[in-house]
Amino acid sequence: MPHLVILYTANLDRPVAQGGTDMTALCRALADTMLATRDEGGKPVFPPGGVRVFAYPASHCAVSDGGTAGRAAGGSGDYGFVYLNLRMGRGRSKETISYAGNALLESAKSHFDSQLKQQHFGLTLQVDEGPEVFDAKTSTLHPLFNRT
Amino acid sequence: MPHLVILYTANLDRPVAQGGTDMTALCRALADTMLATRDEGGKPVFPPGGVRVFAYPASHCAVSDGGTAGRAAGGSGDYGFVYLNLRMGRGRSKETISYAGNALLESAKSHFDSQLKQQHFGLTLQVDEGPEVFDAKTSTLHPLFNRT
Amino acid sequence: MPHLVILYTANLDRPVAQGGTDMTALCRALADTMLATRDEGGKPVFPPGGVRVFAYPASHCAVSDGGTAGRAAGGSGDYGFVYLNLRMGRGRSKETISYAGNALLESAKSHFDSQLKQQHFGLTLQVDEGPEVFDAKTSTLHPLFNRT
Repeated sequence: MPHLVILYTANLDRPVAQGGTDMTALCRALADTMLATRDEGGKPVFPPGGVRVFAYPASHCAVSDGGTAGRAAGGSGDYGFVYLNLRMGRGRSKETISYAGNALLESAKSHFDSQLKQQHFGLTLQVDEGPEVFDAKTSTLHPLFNRT
Repeated sequence: MPHLVILYTANLDRPVAQGGTDMTALCRALADTMLATRDEGGKPVFPPGGVRVFAYPASHCAVSDGGTAGRAAGGSGDYGFVYLNLRMGRGRSKETISYAGNALLESAKSHFDSQLKQQHFGLTLQVDEGPEVFDAKTSTLHPLFNRT
Repeated sequence: MPHLVILYTANLDRPVAQGGTDMTALCRALADTMLATRDEGGKPVFPPGGVRVFAYPASHCAVSDGGTAGRAAGGSGDYGFVYLNLRMGRGRSKETISYAGNALLESAKSHFDSQLKQQHFGLTLQVDEGPEVFDAKTSTLHPLFNRT
């Protein structure tokens, strides 16, 4: 049940020529990163049938001072922000968490290379171990990957 | 302040004939399940004025391997996923949490019966006890249910 | 990395004359409240480059009993709900958390004064200290505010 939820400023959904980016491609890239992540023993860190990346542009938002400092620094004042939150089950080692977190961070930074260079832009990734007190699932996806 | 937030693949918003479903009806069914849930003493587990179910289709998403395994298994490769997260206050008994969780799970599984049979589809429900360090509310809804 | 995520019933996005409100203005007001919040020593509680407020109307929702009690009480039965969730890093004092929480609550209540008077309406604010096990960021926003 590892999932990654992305909350972001809607200006990133603009055409690429206007500073936007392909967020569906980002979702795919991050899912692929999750699928490729192996632990010290070479086993997948995340079960393939449980990998999901969901991205949500904010319908309304306010970022920092609204643009004043950015314009004073010669920018457009049109800030961009992306928040990535991975929630996964308990029990993975510190090393595995750090390795997976860094792999996702690098994947995201690579995707937003242009924004980081051309816009006042922030990207934050946080990984949580779910504090759930009840957890249940049903899936016809998992069995696709449990065949021998 | 119990609330249930549903994150899901937008393909579920398609017309029913194309594999979609009525997500507003799901919200209502789950809210009704919450309203009907009683503890061992017969008291409502969730205050009626605080029951909310909010559902959000992802604007962009990536699920599992993107469809490869599903197509290889004879499916469309168009995976569906629903994540249901109930957040509630601390203090309910293990039995009550388990009972409420199972009631919501059954309600959701029943709603997605067709998807579970006809699509490669995953459904996960998690219940969290809120870890809030500050909690405040104001409401003209609660008083509707506190009259005698 | 303090951020405030707002989940709300989409009826609040209607024109003001029909009971709606300006949710972008709410985001700005809450961001300004965060920017203005100082701790006991007069220092900003939240780093300006990390302040973000993201608001999301629910695509589908169910609130309480769906309107029955509201109509019985002479209202329209069209309930409104706003959930505000601030997530911030660990380490702030209880006093600071309480002060910041109350400032945000007052800002939100002020914004929804009309809804609280004219609609059956609920507003809940919760502040979480993030339980993250991995935290990383990159930003060209923070440096705008770290100049001397």
